Amino acid sequence: MTQLQVLRAQDYPRMPWKNGGGFTEEITRDDGEGLDGFGWRLSIADIEESGGFSVFAGYQRIISVLQGDGMRLLVDGQLSRPLLAFDAFAFSGQSQVSCNLLGGAIRDFNLIYAPQRYRARLQWFDGSSRLYSSASTVLLFAASGQVEVAVAGEGHLLGRYDCLRLEGNDGLLELDVQGRVCLIELHAR
Amino acid sequence: MTQLQVLRAQDYPRMPWKNGGGFTEEITRDDGEGLDGFGWRLSIADIEESGGFSVFAGYQRIISVLQGDGMRLLVDGQLSRPLLAFDAFAFSGQSQVSCNLLGGAIRDFNLIYAPQRYRARLQWFDGSSRLYSSASTVLLFAASGQVEVAVAGEGHLLGRYDCLRLEGNDGLLELDVQGRVCLIELHAR
Repeated sequence: MTQLQVLRAQDYPRMPWKNGGGFTEEITRDDGEGLDGFGWRLSIADIEESGGFSVFAGYQRIISVLQGDGMRLLVDGQLSRPLLAFDAFAFSGQSQVSCNLLGGAIRDFNLIYAPQRYRARLQWFDGSSRLYSSASTVLLFAASGQVEVAVAGEGHLLGRYDCLRLEGNDGLLELDVQGRVCLIELHAR
Repeated sequence: MTQLQVLRAQDYPRMPWKNGGGFTEEITRDDGEGLDGFGWRLSIADIEESGGFSVFAGYQRIISVLQGDGMRLLVDGQLSRPLLAFDAFAFSGQSQVSCNLLGGAIRDFNLIYAPQRYRARLQWFDGSSRLYSSASTVLLFAASGQVEVAVAGEGHLLGRYDCLRLEGNDGLLELDVQGRVCLIELHAR
């Protein structure tokens, strides 16, 4: 049975970083079990100054700038390309990572997941898109205002940074999207 | 170990339909085992006149017009929207289907797969796209000439109706695509 939730940006819990360099808002995550922690998590971060990222051993990360002038990441000594808005970049959670802001503060969007537990797919797109997915978990994150989504023909309207979460899909699901979104699809292994 | 093949449109075997209404070119398929037949198949069809489709019981189909004025499908008595180029439409292989051409002959593109054996994902896009996939099978079908694809940074050039096939992916694969393509991703269940 498919379950659909629309998560509103105004409801995301917001937490300051221990090192004072920014804030994280958790959008949603799977149901972590005990000591294992989460299997996947989506979050937004505000990075106010250049500095180090936390290590997440055993996790894969994909980061995308949402607002601001962008950044470059130094990942285990390797400098990334300049990361501008809506340009996804993947790296290992166990890498030593530091962030160099290209200008002022930025806001970014993060998928972090355990590849031993999940297969993941992530893509940004804009404009009008129709697609068919069989993923058991589908997450659609709106990066423009007034994103229109139809799930199997049923319409939903997302404001900026709202997120539609679909769980328990086992068939071939039609998604019609109008606007700029990041689509994340996950399968438990 | 990931295996990559580029299939060229000029090499696709071409077969007339039994009813004389068209031709099919098989692009690629999984290794069917004995009587079970294929688990998935990609093909191109030239439809020269309105008429019935074959039944494929136990299969799911997704069809997209590539060239021509388009068509409408009558699926178990229900008329589809007008299907124009690059607009994917899903239907059950066991439905009774007939095709009404909106104008002259068309060329279309077909995914057919067994949902008991595979989960599938299909999306058309155009322009410049970067995405991350964990699908074990990735098929990238070029619908414009000169499609540029980089798989984990390694470049390939596809002509119109060529198809890149990737098998055995188990990690998070970066794909960068420039041009109009249909991307199909499959997981064995």
